[in-house]
Amino acid sequence: MIGLTTEQAAEIESIRATPSSTLRPVSPGLEEILHKSFPVLDHGIIRVVDYMGDDSAIVQAARVSYGRGTKRIQEDSGLIKYLLRHLHTTPFEMAEIKFHVKLPIFVARQWIRHRMASVNEYSARYSVLDNEFYIPQPEHLAAQSTLNRQGRGAVLEGDEAAEVISLLRRDAEQAYDDYSTMLNDPGSPDHRDDRSGLARELARMNLSLNFYTQWYWKTDLHNLMNFLRLRADSHAQFEIRAYAEIMLEIMAAWVPIAHSAFKEYRMEAVQLSGTAVKAVRRMIAGEAVSQENSGLSAREWQELSAALDLPSLKAS
Amino acid sequence: MIGLTTEQAAEIESIRATPSSTLRPVSPGLEEILHKSFPVLDHGIIRVVDYMGDDSAIVQAARVSYGRGTKRIQEDSGLIKYLLRHLHTTPFEMAEIKFHVKLPIFVARQWIRHRMASVNEYSARYSVLDNEFYIPQPEHLAAQSTLNRQGRGAVLEGDEAAEVISLLRRDAEQAYDDYSTMLNDPGSPDHRDDRSGLARELARMNLSLNFYTQWYWKTDLHNLMNFLRLRADSHAQFEIRAYAEIMLEIMAAWVPIAHSAFKEYRMEAVQLSGTAVKAVRRMIAGEAVSQENSGLSAREWQELSAALDLPSLKAS
Amino acid sequence: MIGLTTEQAAEIESIRATPSSTLRPVSPGLEEILHKSFPVLDHGIIRVVDYMGDDSAIVQAARVSYGRGTKRIQEDSGLIKYLLRHLHTTPFEMAEIKFHVKLPIFVARQWIRHRMASVNEYSARYSVLDNEFYIPQPEHLAAQSTLNRQGRGAVLEGDEAAEVISLLRRDAEQAYDDYSTMLNDPGSPDHRDDRSGLARELARMNLSLNFYTQWYWKTDLHNLMNFLRLRADSHAQFEIRAYAEIMLEIMAAWVPIAHSAFKEYRMEAVQLSGTAVKAVRRMIAGEAVSQENSGLSAREWQELSAALDLPSLKAS
Amino acid sequence: MIGLTTEQAAEIESIRATPSSTLRPVSPGLEEILHKSFPVLDHGIIRVVDYMGDDSAIVQAARVSYGRGTKRIQEDSGLIKYLLRHLHTTPFEMAEIKFHVKLPIFVARQWIRHRMASVNEYSARYSVLDNEFYIPQPEHLAAQSTLNRQGRGAVLEGDEAAEVISLLRRDAEQAYDDYSTMLNDPGSPDHRDDRSGLARELARMNLSLNFYTQWYWKTDLHNLMNFLRLRADSHAQFEIRAYAEIMLEIMAAWVPIAHSAFKEYRMEAVQLSGTAVKAVRRMIAGEAVSQENSGLSAREWQELSAALDLPSLKAS
Repeated sequence: MIGLTTEQAAEIESIRATPSSTLRPVSPGLEEILHKSFPVLDHGIIRVVDYMGDDSAIVQAARVSYGRGTKRIQEDSGLIKYLLRHLHTTPFEMAEIKFHVKLPIFVARQWIRHRMASVNEYSARYSVLDNEFYIPQPEHLAAQSTLNRQGRGAVLEGDEAAEVISLLRRDAEQAYDDYSTMLNDPGSPDHRDDRSGLARELARMNLSLNFYTQWYWKTDLHNLMNFLRLRADSHAQFEIRAYAEIMLEIMAAWVPIAHSAFKEYRMEAVQLSGTAVKAVRRMIAGEAVSQENSGLSAREWQELSAALDLPSLKAS
Repeated sequence: MIGLTTEQAAEIESIRATPSSTLRPVSPGLEEILHKSFPVLDHGIIRVVDYMGDDSAIVQAARVSYGRGTKRIQEDSGLIKYLLRHLHTTPFEMAEIKFHVKLPIFVARQWIRHRMASVNEYSARYSVLDNEFYIPQPEHLAAQSTLNRQGRGAVLEGDEAAEVISLLRRDAEQAYDDYSTMLNDPGSPDHRDDRSGLARELARMNLSLNFYTQWYWKTDLHNLMNFLRLRADSHAQFEIRAYAEIMLEIMAAWVPIAHSAFKEYRMEAVQLSGTAVKAVRRMIAGEAVSQENSGLSAREWQELSAALDLPSLKAS
Repeated sequence: MIGLTTEQAAEIESIRATPSSTLRPVSPGLEEILHKSFPVLDHGIIRVVDYMGDDSAIVQAARVSYGRGTKRIQEDSGLIKYLLRHLHTTPFEMAEIKFHVKLPIFVARQWIRHRMASVNEYSARYSVLDNEFYIPQPEHLAAQSTLNRQGRGAVLEGDEAAEVISLLRRDAEQAYDDYSTMLNDPGSPDHRDDRSGLARELARMNLSLNFYTQWYWKTDLHNLMNFLRLRADSHAQFEIRAYAEIMLEIMAAWVPIAHSAFKEYRMEAVQLSGTAVKAVRRMIAGEAVSQENSGLSAREWQELSAALDLPSLKAS
Repeated sequence: MIGLTTEQAAEIESIRATPSSTLRPVSPGLEEILHKSFPVLDHGIIRVVDYMGDDSAIVQAARVSYGRGTKRIQEDSGLIKYLLRHLHTTPFEMAEIKFHVKLPIFVARQWIRHRMASVNEYSARYSVLDNEFYIPQPEHLAAQSTLNRQGRGAVLEGDEAAEVISLLRRDAEQAYDDYSTMLNDPGSPDHRDDRSGLARELARMNLSLNFYTQWYWKTDLHNLMNFLRLRADSHAQFEIRAYAEIMLEIMAAWVPIAHSAFKEYRMEAVQLSGTAVKAVRRMIAGEAVSQENSGLSAREWQELSAALDLPSLKAS
């Protein structure tokens, strides 16, 4: 399996073979995939290692009730949708999920910006990192966007793509070789008995940002949705989005009602500014509204046109 | 049962009678008491309604390993003690616990100061509060301390205690009567069909701080220990300490290794200031150290003497 | 001045009379009102006691530049609007504000739910509370809403309003009298030399939730906006909204560009759900969309109609 | 000046030359160095760009007073020491400081673990990183410790040190060259007009962890002390400690009273476990206590001996 040694895969299977009895609420959808490893990118994985609560935890907290919190699916769904629509976010903090993730360091650097989470990362002060680094698939080797300073443009073509891949691979291999040499790793061909080896906390600085690290990452459902809203969005960098999209599916297995409300009121929702609201009112009343008379900037007009599928955009 | 209606007790029993199968780690000690209601003060309760992780979650996160994280009890215990001693607190965030608590409002006001937690409180904007208020037991009716501006002194005696209890009870009953009248509660003897009743969000302001409220409160083990360190301490107000002491026992059932390390390295630990360290070194070397030549203030000397059981204090 | 003793007012004037020199960025609008006390409700106040940064702090952080961060007002404004529109919230954390607030306890209980803030409250364990409590103005004595379980309906009329006010006042006065008696306050008419007085931490439980407390409350601009979005909203309880509306004006004086963007992209913005987006697209295309064929629930249709000023609502 | 271009240095000078008037509390010691750039490591810097509050902010919040909060230096100092000794940490949140830091990415990765802070980092998705990377001084090129899995041992000697430096430099230069080539940077010798250049967000993954990044980082005094306690400690990695030690001096200039209390009650303090307390009591009473009869593990005994300068350790 990608990203797992045989031993690790066996350990996961052994855990999955020994269920326990619990008096806690259980999410059948999540139990189905608990501990299983989902491959991401070329060597990454993501898997759920623990969780607390399900859709009913949201309802129970919102009602501050004694029982399981669930009355009828229909009512629970209505309440969860209401809560999300009206920014009553605290009941969503009552469900918790813990992931084990293997990811390139540059992805980890974006991910860690989400502070309302707990994290324990594999320590390269304490242990030696594996020789695993990320090389993008050719179809993800995009040129710098000329429209958006922090976006990707068209896919690189021909020998430019090939050269990029070759440079990335060569430099990563070189970096790891020299990392082993500096550590004076007994397994390294450069090992010399008369050397002591550089401290691991120093040698690691030679590795590049596409090397893989791993961590345990735990957050609550409210903060998971904040993460997914930004990182499963089309403006997020492809590599972190690859993780977020799997997490979105995991969320659907775990809390199906909250997931459906999240799609409706966050992922597919459109926010209209005060000025845009006025323009939309006029459009609905049948007025011919243009960017010029809308009060919106060119960029905002473009965003509104895209969101509402306005003909002005289709024409251009 | 104190603090529970028959219906609530039945609901709890029904939940406890229907275990589920899970692939998650399970804490046998906590399953034993899950959902059960522990009485606190005269009408309060505390009970655990959900949890995630056990001692092995701490170990697993610290090692960032694939498996259950437990090798041998002995090793796990050594690691957990090491982590706590050296302020490596993040692995303790990996276990989570959720309580249902019924508590007087003035206790809730102290409790909520712990911000690293999630809370959903019964809403007195949305629902009518019950007629339940806290009256201290006579042995807890303490005089204002004359030594410590925020502490209690000796227990009140004779008719002073009786009068306090009588005033507290009379005022709370009056407040609730008038709350019902203002709400124009159909069950109230003062109900009048020609009145509409004051909004609940306004009427509640007439209730006093000893009325009971309830909430769901969720936090991780690291923050639970921060809470317990302050609130199970002898300087905490008796009423919140009554909750904290039960939570400390719950912690022992849930994560026995962490609980034992917590007692050793936090609850029973003593912090010596830089100056106190120097004084203690001299004491151990056999020097006669007094407050005057110690460099410590009178108050700090007293604190040190109490902590180390110095004869100077016993003499006085 | 409401809510201030002569001595306090004099202390504030003395501070305002002694400016210092600083190399920090300065907000002229906020310096104008710094330390000044704004009255709220019958005995409350709010005043700014310190701040850090201004609009340029947002720009400086977003650009990670060496200088003041301001190029031209026009550019800064465009950037701040862009950041807010696209949920790039971290630069707004770079400006900070600290308030001194005097407020009824039931308002403080709503306020403290905003956890991303620092707070130090006047301690009723340590000191005796003043005899000040909130009595609503007659025009704010609203009946319980019959439509919204947590809202207000019409204003109470005639003797119902008079009776509510009379009950609130009577109970608060009684509570404070008995608080003084229990404390055995030397200034109380009930003082007896043979009594020791109940501990302050216990006596306070007799006070009702409309008594005033005070605190220092500090937060950053991002979290201030989160607070204002919920608490200056028409669904917030009137009493906390009274504070939030003044804070909104203070924000305008402090960071005028961010304030204007906040109004446009948060306060006056409308969020359309995925289903609502589809309905609006059809409306703009000239289709006759009704609740029935929109896919929206009756309640969501009503919310959309109100937001977009749809004729269907005007007709009803 | 290390780490600054002439233009940046000029911009800083220009800001320092134009003071403003403010009604806020001012810290004279911090104004002295505000905006100035302190060199760290080979290309790093740290400088304070803004702050809020001083020692009096702590006192003012603890007392919830109307005025400046300062009575007499002596009293303020006593209060601040009391607060720190007894874990009353909230008043320390009332002072705030904002740094501009240039630091190697591997240091940034340790630093960001402190979540109670605000950060805006230079974006390598948006802009091209400079060709600056960290190469340790020979005296900091330590071997892996054989005693402590995450520590450094003796300094590398002779040609091992020279080879490490040479490998680090060669790999970093290669990485940057290839970064420029992949970006198809117009200034690069490899620039080709027929190529579009790889997106910046992808090309950056080729850089190693010793490249410099920069950010604005803001936190409050309480969380700054948490940071310094861990990062100015002798167990912290040398490179982050180099920053923390300067921050400790900055703290002394900013809040001299709090700094002195912090040294006494945190940096130089020793925590005795419950078992160690019992052992120390026996030592003071003149008993001959050994590891064997102390109840402490060998490691804890060693730690206690070091902390209290016990003869047992000196002998070994």
